[in-house]
Amino acid sequence: MTVNITLPSTSYDIYIDKLKNIKLKSKVVVVTNPTVSGFHLPYLLSKLEANEVSVVSVPDGEEYKTMETLEMILDHCFTHKLNRSSVLIAFGGGVIGDMTGFAASIYQRGIDFIQIPTTLLSQVDASVGGKTGINNKFGKNLIGAFHQPREVNIDPYFLTTLPKREFGAGVAEIIKMAVCFSGEFFEWLLLNRLDNEKNIAKAIEKSVKTKAYVVSVDEKEQGLRAALNYGHTFGHVIENETNYSKYLHGEAVGIGMVMANSLAVKIGLLSELQAKSIKDLLDSYEIPTTYKIDNVEDFYNHFFLDKKSLDDKIKFILPLGIGDVKITDEIKKSDVIEVLKGF
Amino acid sequence: MTVNITLPSTSYDIYIDKLKNIKLKSKVVVVTNPTVSGFHLPYLLSKLEANEVSVVSVPDGEEYKTMETLEMILDHCFTHKLNRSSVLIAFGGGVIGDMTGFAASIYQRGIDFIQIPTTLLSQVDASVGGKTGINNKFGKNLIGAFHQPREVNIDPYFLTTLPKREFGAGVAEIIKMAVCFSGEFFEWLLLNRLDNEKNIAKAIEKSVKTKAYVVSVDEKEQGLRAALNYGHTFGHVIENETNYSKYLHGEAVGIGMVMANSLAVKIGLLSELQAKSIKDLLDSYEIPTTYKIDNVEDFYNHFFLDKKSLDDKIKFILPLGIGDVKITDEIKKSDVIEVLKGF
Repeated sequence: MTVNITLPSTSYDIYIDKLKNIKLKSKVVVVTNPTVSGFHLPYLLSKLEANEVSVVSVPDGEEYKTMETLEMILDHCFTHKLNRSSVLIAFGGGVIGDMTGFAASIYQRGIDFIQIPTTLLSQVDASVGGKTGINNKFGKNLIGAFHQPREVNIDPYFLTTLPKREFGAGVAEIIKMAVCFSGEFFEWLLLNRLDNEKNIAKAIEKSVKTKAYVVSVDEKEQGLRAALNYGHTFGHVIENETNYSKYLHGEAVGIGMVMANSLAVKIGLLSELQAKSIKDLLDSYEIPTTYKIDNVEDFYNHFFLDKKSLDDKIKFILPLGIGDVKITDEIKKSDVIEVLKGF
Repeated sequence: MTVNITLPSTSYDIYIDKLKNIKLKSKVVVVTNPTVSGFHLPYLLSKLEANEVSVVSVPDGEEYKTMETLEMILDHCFTHKLNRSSVLIAFGGGVIGDMTGFAASIYQRGIDFIQIPTTLLSQVDASVGGKTGINNKFGKNLIGAFHQPREVNIDPYFLTTLPKREFGAGVAEIIKMAVCFSGEFFEWLLLNRLDNEKNIAKAIEKSVKTKAYVVSVDEKEQGLRAALNYGHTFGHVIENETNYSKYLHGEAVGIGMVMANSLAVKIGLLSELQAKSIKDLLDSYEIPTTYKIDNVEDFYNHFFLDKKSLDDKIKFILPLGIGDVKITDEIKKSDVIEVLKGF
């Protein structure tokens, strides 16, 4: 099936299906990592036709989403003399997608790229929205650009080689979409286990459509799109405190959602039963939902490193029941501290 | 006077006048270099009001338009905790403008910047069009983005401290605009010497308006805008061969125009008298118009390093009389070689 994304700046299709043939009359660079290429590169290359195809394999993992790796990709492109009609293909998870998209956005002031996400998280999340970027010593995704892909190919087949924890991280993102935007989708998730390809494809479709709607009304994250950061305000601090090594991004967001829910319950936006229902769904996929906070004040102060903070106000994205969301920067510090003490 | 630039993506004003007061309700970082700040920083600061103002001074010169300097600017922004409402001010010539604009375009996926160009070249050229970027070992401006400024303030007063050679480089750019797009402007330049503030302001206005028109019909350089690269195909090779150290960018473009003119004469697009009239005007401002080519084949091969080349075709921008331009990638190598032999 095909989901069309129409934005003020551009329009492109997301194909959720067996990988189709890709024919390009230009040079192509496939950006991937050893894990993905080990499993799936021959399959991709069998589907790909272009004037010239080369592959650059970069180290696997969030800790390599750096300026150094970005320059490795760009240098490969310069060495292969890519021009403005050339195309990059992001073949991997969110890290590969973010870096490839950013490289494409700044190579000769912008060339096209195609996303072929291979993890559940990147299929439902990173493949829609055009956010690209890298981390640096100050935090995550602090350098980057908005750059939309030319097309996205989502083949659930790639998930067959995905480690269980990474699958769970993707499910956390799917649950996030449902809690924020669709009570009906949340009900569907309570009834349909993501343990078979049919349900997985359906859940990807629902997530992508939901995110596509959100992004189409707010490409540059001025308003509604900020709702997608439900769980991220807390999650980023958790990732930061654990040096981006203990939890996968989706896992940290999962814990962050549980924290945001506690805050939402505290100020009366969410009932305790609703919060429990969300936590139970996360637990059923063995997604981590607990985190031991060593120092509550330190944790709180780390919010200010987050790029979503505006001067001295912290923006919280809190569920307003299930299927709606409230974005607020008017939460009392004492309420937050009390919630954090519960962890 | 004010020139409005309206693009599909945005709209902004260019003020050509004494520097006006700038009031911003956000953090501001002024990016400048020791030369400009030595002469003019107190003047700028006296006009600037913001929540917090800090200054980052980076080394002066094209050879510092690098990833390292870019990271120096970005690090300053992170250290000062700029957020998405913060504003960068580019206070210097084209190098400062290109790097500041690029830093603004990738800092937290894009923040605003204001241009206050202090050289004639950057006032007439770099301040319009939104091209930002840096150089690397593969060539000039190969990494960058299109990012439009929030506003541009052009104060001819800054030119009082500009070295004579740099002034000439700016005049070369003005002559380029006239030759490409306006026979009337070229006639005006033959009649009005740029040796007083009134004429200089008028020439800046005419150049900016011309470039604004070109950019407004072709923001992302798909067509007409390529005409602005008249002189650049040759000029880039000259800069590359001389390690970006012997000639200023505008000087190299000046020589490149003379080379392009010879080619245009050879294939019948320009008369010898027209070519002479352009060269005489350049000479009258002591802008270099000659260059000794050591090895004609080497020079030719260097065209292919240029990012404007598409695969094996070289794009030439040649004057079609004075006031019009022809963009072509169908020039015979033998014609180019013969022209190069004349240098």
